[in-house]
Amino acid sequence: MTGTGPPPPALRWSDDGPAVVLLDQTRLPAEEAELVCSDVGALVAAIARLAVRGAPLLGIAGAYGVALAAHRGDDVDAAAAALAGARPTAVNLAWGVRKAHDAWRAGGAAAALDEARSVERADAAAADAIARHGLALVPERARVLTHCNTGRLVSGGCGTAFGIVAAAHRAGRLAQLWVDETRPLLQGARLTAYEAARAGMPYRVLADTAAASLFAARQVDLVVVGADRIAADGSVANKVGTLGLAVLAHHHGVPFVVAAPLSTVDPGTASGADIVVEERAPDEVTTFAGVPVAPKGAPAYNPAFDVTPPELVTAVVTEAGIARPVDGSRLDELLRRSWQSAREMSP
Amino acid sequence: MTGTGPPPPALRWSDDGPAVVLLDQTRLPAEEAELVCSDVGALVAAIARLAVRGAPLLGIAGAYGVALAAHRGDDVDAAAAALAGARPTAVNLAWGVRKAHDAWRAGGAAAALDEARSVERADAAAADAIARHGLALVPERARVLTHCNTGRLVSGGCGTAFGIVAAAHRAGRLAQLWVDETRPLLQGARLTAYEAARAGMPYRVLADTAAASLFAARQVDLVVVGADRIAADGSVANKVGTLGLAVLAHHHGVPFVVAAPLSTVDPGTASGADIVVEERAPDEVTTFAGVPVAPKGAPAYNPAFDVTPPELVTAVVTEAGIARPVDGSRLDELLRRSWQSAREMSP
Repeated sequence: MTGTGPPPPALRWSDDGPAVVLLDQTRLPAEEAELVCSDVGALVAAIARLAVRGAPLLGIAGAYGVALAAHRGDDVDAAAAALAGARPTAVNLAWGVRKAHDAWRAGGAAAALDEARSVERADAAAADAIARHGLALVPERARVLTHCNTGRLVSGGCGTAFGIVAAAHRAGRLAQLWVDETRPLLQGARLTAYEAARAGMPYRVLADTAAASLFAARQVDLVVVGADRIAADGSVANKVGTLGLAVLAHHHGVPFVVAAPLSTVDPGTASGADIVVEERAPDEVTTFAGVPVAPKGAPAYNPAFDVTPPELVTAVVTEAGIARPVDGSRLDELLRRSWQSAREMSP
Repeated sequence: MTGTGPPPPALRWSDDGPAVVLLDQTRLPAEEAELVCSDVGALVAAIARLAVRGAPLLGIAGAYGVALAAHRGDDVDAAAAALAGARPTAVNLAWGVRKAHDAWRAGGAAAALDEARSVERADAAAADAIARHGLALVPERARVLTHCNTGRLVSGGCGTAFGIVAAAHRAGRLAQLWVDETRPLLQGARLTAYEAARAGMPYRVLADTAAASLFAARQVDLVVVGADRIAADGSVANKVGTLGLAVLAHHHGVPFVVAAPLSTVDPGTASGADIVVEERAPDEVTTFAGVPVAPKGAPAYNPAFDVTPPELVTAVVTEAGIARPVDGSRLDELLRRSWQSAREMSP
């Protein structure tokens, strides 16, 4: 059963054990189930089966995982390798593991735990700053459309795009939140709707196909989405379906805002054309909630994300402020700051 | 199990019984199951639970249903009323029932059956003409994107948009068919993919969210969709998701073609603003195959269709030829012909 009020934390450290305690995201929205990971093996399994997910949250989970191994007196080197390998393509996960691993080598278990807490606090602070900057872009009585899941379930704090929506709600500016269901994996219907319901927001879920008619009926004042990666020219790689919304927003004269931490801005990627789009398994499309919906063996096109060109992006909101890729303003400054983050993140 | 080659007919008359024999569309694509309706009650139930569906096919089903009642010696007036009421908003169903009912009054059971066959043949002829006209709009090595289901499963013949695709395939011009899954009811993944697989077409299913990236990658040469209703100004009401594709096609300079019989052109509807969009039950979005995919009680926005303005429609293909709503060419002529159809269809 789910309640109202602030949702349980997506991840927390428990001295009792010790343990890393997760909100099992695979059981949402049907139930809020705590998953107590008392050893690294349990946490690795939870990461692998997506009980905990989302780039920033994975970094935090990796760091706490190292602290857990250190507190138990396990082989910390082996634990760090297992954690980092739980989802090989998750850059943030490996980064969080390395931060805590380095701290452990320098100062032992207590230092590893301090470092994990620091990673968590830094993410929460970045999320707060993104929400604060982004709020300036939300008009009164705003009807906001969002895609995928970008809130507390993927963050040590309030999230990115959803953090701006939550700030608007607290400021009394949110008249309506439109929640794209976000096929194929339905993160909008399953997770963003859950976060919106818990927060008491006025929201409605829609099939991704229905967004166009909302724009045509002038029922959308603002689109806010997250980002997986932002290229140096302002091109935005994000969950598949983002580009379609950007084209709709452009066609109907609605602002299209991308919210993401600086670590998402990648100066090493020159343009959208340099972003390789990962294709995922066809059965994400040819089945729905485990039920086959297409002929057996039907081939599918299933890109994980798409790339929105900078001319369709009204603003990029980061913890360092707002950039407008279309005229290049402040993007260079964000890129410089991003280089600093990148250096910090490199091994 | 489904095979290859031409699919079984969506509906056929059997003298053996007699009976109306349906391909049960609720069991596709998993299995091709014949549903033998030996009395009108069984046919009414099949219509109500969507075992047979699609505007033209419902007209044919209604006409054969009257013939079935007449051949059995049932109360034909009562049968006609029950058939017409099986799906109260389906205009074609009531029209097909009335045609056969009138014929029965004039000439008995044999006349009713002749009329049903005539309704079926007329639809097949219109579909053939649409496919023939539409083929002229398909380039060599075409990569065609379609939405919803518009083929043999909704028609006495080859269908509308899908009929054009099939003609292109036979002419060796179809390099790739992109099949939008078509949330919320997944007619694309379930039914169009089935028809494409049976016909041996090179096809792939995609989540509706993935269409944008196909356009951006220049992988779509043509969009072809059907229509529920076309207003006098050329605005097209069709399955939800059509408008989003039209905006994407326009943005990327790809032709957007609507295929529909003349009976779909409604001179009594002046413009898109005069089309009332029906909202359907939220649980079509918040559950799938009985499995909840959103929080319990989540509110949803679930329009059945959307309205594409004429400036986004490159061409309308009917059995009488091709009109281009953007400059009004030939639309007036189609409207005049449509008035004639409308008079013929009125009680």
